[in-house]
Amino acid sequence: MGMTMTQKILAKHAGLDSVVPGQLIQAKLDIVMGNDITTAVALNEFKKTGATEVFDTDKVVIVLDHFTPNKDIKAAEQCKSCRTFAYDMNIKNFFDVGKAGIEHALLPEQGIVVPGQVIIGADSHTCTYGALGAFSTGIGSTDMAIGMATGECWFKVPSAIKFHIVGKKPPYVSGKDVILHIIGKIGVDGALYRSMEFIGEGIKELTMDDRFTIANMAIEAGAKNGIFPVDEACIAYAKEHSKKTFDIFEADADAEYDEEITIDLSSLEPTVSFPHLPDNTRTIDQVGDVKIDQVVIGSCTNGRIEDMAIAADILRGKKVADHVRTIIIPATQEIYLECIRREYVTDFIEAGAIFSMPTCGPCLGGHMGILAAGERCVSTTNRNFVGRMGHVESEVYLASPAVAAASAIAGKIADPRKIGGNAE
Amino acid sequence: MGMTMTQKILAKHAGLDSVVPGQLIQAKLDIVMGNDITTAVALNEFKKTGATEVFDTDKVVIVLDHFTPNKDIKAAEQCKSCRTFAYDMNIKNFFDVGKAGIEHALLPEQGIVVPGQVIIGADSHTCTYGALGAFSTGIGSTDMAIGMATGECWFKVPSAIKFHIVGKKPPYVSGKDVILHIIGKIGVDGALYRSMEFIGEGIKELTMDDRFTIANMAIEAGAKNGIFPVDEACIAYAKEHSKKTFDIFEADADAEYDEEITIDLSSLEPTVSFPHLPDNTRTIDQVGDVKIDQVVIGSCTNGRIEDMAIAADILRGKKVADHVRTIIIPATQEIYLECIRREYVTDFIEAGAIFSMPTCGPCLGGHMGILAAGERCVSTTNRNFVGRMGHVESEVYLASPAVAAASAIAGKIADPRKIGGNAE
Repeated sequence: MGMTMTQKILAKHAGLDSVVPGQLIQAKLDIVMGNDITTAVALNEFKKTGATEVFDTDKVVIVLDHFTPNKDIKAAEQCKSCRTFAYDMNIKNFFDVGKAGIEHALLPEQGIVVPGQVIIGADSHTCTYGALGAFSTGIGSTDMAIGMATGECWFKVPSAIKFHIVGKKPPYVSGKDVILHIIGKIGVDGALYRSMEFIGEGIKELTMDDRFTIANMAIEAGAKNGIFPVDEACIAYAKEHSKKTFDIFEADADAEYDEEITIDLSSLEPTVSFPHLPDNTRTIDQVGDVKIDQVVIGSCTNGRIEDMAIAADILRGKKVADHVRTIIIPATQEIYLECIRREYVTDFIEAGAIFSMPTCGPCLGGHMGILAAGERCVSTTNRNFVGRMGHVESEVYLASPAVAAASAIAGKIADPRKIGGNAE
Repeated sequence: MGMTMTQKILAKHAGLDSVVPGQLIQAKLDIVMGNDITTAVALNEFKKTGATEVFDTDKVVIVLDHFTPNKDIKAAEQCKSCRTFAYDMNIKNFFDVGKAGIEHALLPEQGIVVPGQVIIGADSHTCTYGALGAFSTGIGSTDMAIGMATGECWFKVPSAIKFHIVGKKPPYVSGKDVILHIIGKIGVDGALYRSMEFIGEGIKELTMDDRFTIANMAIEAGAKNGIFPVDEACIAYAKEHSKKTFDIFEADADAEYDEEITIDLSSLEPTVSFPHLPDNTRTIDQVGDVKIDQVVIGSCTNGRIEDMAIAADILRGKKVADHVRTIIIPATQEIYLECIRREYVTDFIEAGAIFSMPTCGPCLGGHMGILAAGERCVSTTNRNFVGRMGHVESEVYLASPAVAAASAIAGKIADPRKIGGNAE
């Protein structure tokens, strides 16, 4: 029986010729990643292993991005423990405030992750790197600790759903709309512990930033990972950002999938996930009149340069509604610099938005845009669970940067095709 | 008996020909200001007055700047109550996230405060506007509430200390060094309930930004207010920023002062306030070897364009020390835009600093750079009390933007004259 792309990567890293779904394996790790919240917890577990050093000082990555710049004393103490560990262990890829960005945007940008790798991260959105044709998944702090000590992790080999992507992407439809549409279709447990393998001619329609967004939210359908083929665009991205050599894996022609779902990009519309689950989706024409208090454009899901570009295109020369706090957060310092070069930051501020340094901040209700009771936010982030961004009586509506920017102007959830941009 | 500048302003606003120190008066208010923390408290008191509207919708100013963008649910609820009140009361000068900045930089920039006014603000650093030749002082939330309802406030007329400013300001000596030197000299209660009246030929050496910094920290010497003469530079500033007409008050030639202190600018050096009081000052050559963990450049004290300029001059083309989180915060959105125009933001980020939207954040231990136990920060803010910026075992060293920027590079408190800049 043939293997899926994910299965082939896992087999290789387990030193096996083949694996089958459900098989428990022990695989070698190319990258073990943690952030300020999860690493702080992992350190205690790391000590219990008895290890005095990490398995490879180049392969452990620590990014202080969640409650940074330090939100409070607890956050400060967590960051301090991570920092001390990173210096003590001589960890090369330690990203402190000022050198950092949001982990899942930072690692690809810095060339730390490349195709064909096995990557674990103590953060659920670690599945993002599947956009690069890597096996990449979120684990808990205990597995992170063992990973740091041994360079290995156990996995149960996942079965897969094949998503056959066809058609052309309409204007103002982005990777975010693709993944929200998929989650709406299959549900938040629709891919439970399985791989979401994206295949098909439509993939060339998806930019790398689209793919990062789609892979990033695989976890919101319950998936173990999401993964894209390593095509020309992917190879170009990897070579531009990294000096590492990499292996390209392809699914076998006779690979077995639990299901095959076709997604015709041309049929998609701007899509919004209503409270309080990502699968509670509506296309923009079904949204109705939803007045909002805040817009957040950023996060590991949608804080990349293309996200900033579409938001700037829509906001340029316009004003956000008086009653809407519009918070725009680039995912990395590099993206921040590029936003300055392209004059987006000026566009944003002149439109009445704020533009901050990179942080996960509001996405997980950390800081930098927390909601009061009864407030509503359109957010480009990845989760709209009860209380995710603040008070349990607040509401988060997940959408693309285009929808978010249009909504900021309209003061209610709005169709970017109606608000319009400058360029398109 | 002649009156001081402060006394003349107060007499005029009380409808009296003259006042004497210690006299209790009731004065008409030109501006009543509050922020997200103090206004939220004042609203309860306002309700108790029975008032159903504010005395003047142009003269009440509410700025959401302290725990914004909303740090947590409590901050979100406070902001929401301020916002609801501002909309209900039709308050013209309501500054929400995206339209705001740090109150004491914003009000002069937006032309809301001008010379000769009487201004109260529910924030201790309201004394800042003395730089414009206004009487301006911090009050509590109860007085804010009464002020909003009636347009009046009671005051005990202060006596005064005359600070005779002479000499020329040496390179890398700024308004911050002047005021730290003064506080070091007279102590944190050296001007208790008195006016600090700055007079003399040396004042022309002080830019308006220098004067804002100096007046801002008058409260750190216990003063009721700090005040500068309305000279050409002040008039030019007021006319550039405001369309309001204004009155110019001058101290009588025979005004009486409790004390007269001469400050020779040419004798000053970069000055640092050691923990845990602003009057615990040392000149930079007496500092010794103080390793630091964080630098903050910003706040109502030093977040203006000249502060950004000197920091950029020093940081441009250099790198901050690896172990120093360098947090730079412009005081307003206008200053942010100007920092982009002048390419400072690029300089800062390339140097390894972060640059955020305006917020009071770290200054008062709110968010955006809180310290862990044992950590040390060089900060351009105004207070270094125990626990002010985080853990009670952390330490804050107050300094100018030049000293802060030089320290970020050196990784320890450093003399900007030794690190050097690009322009000077």
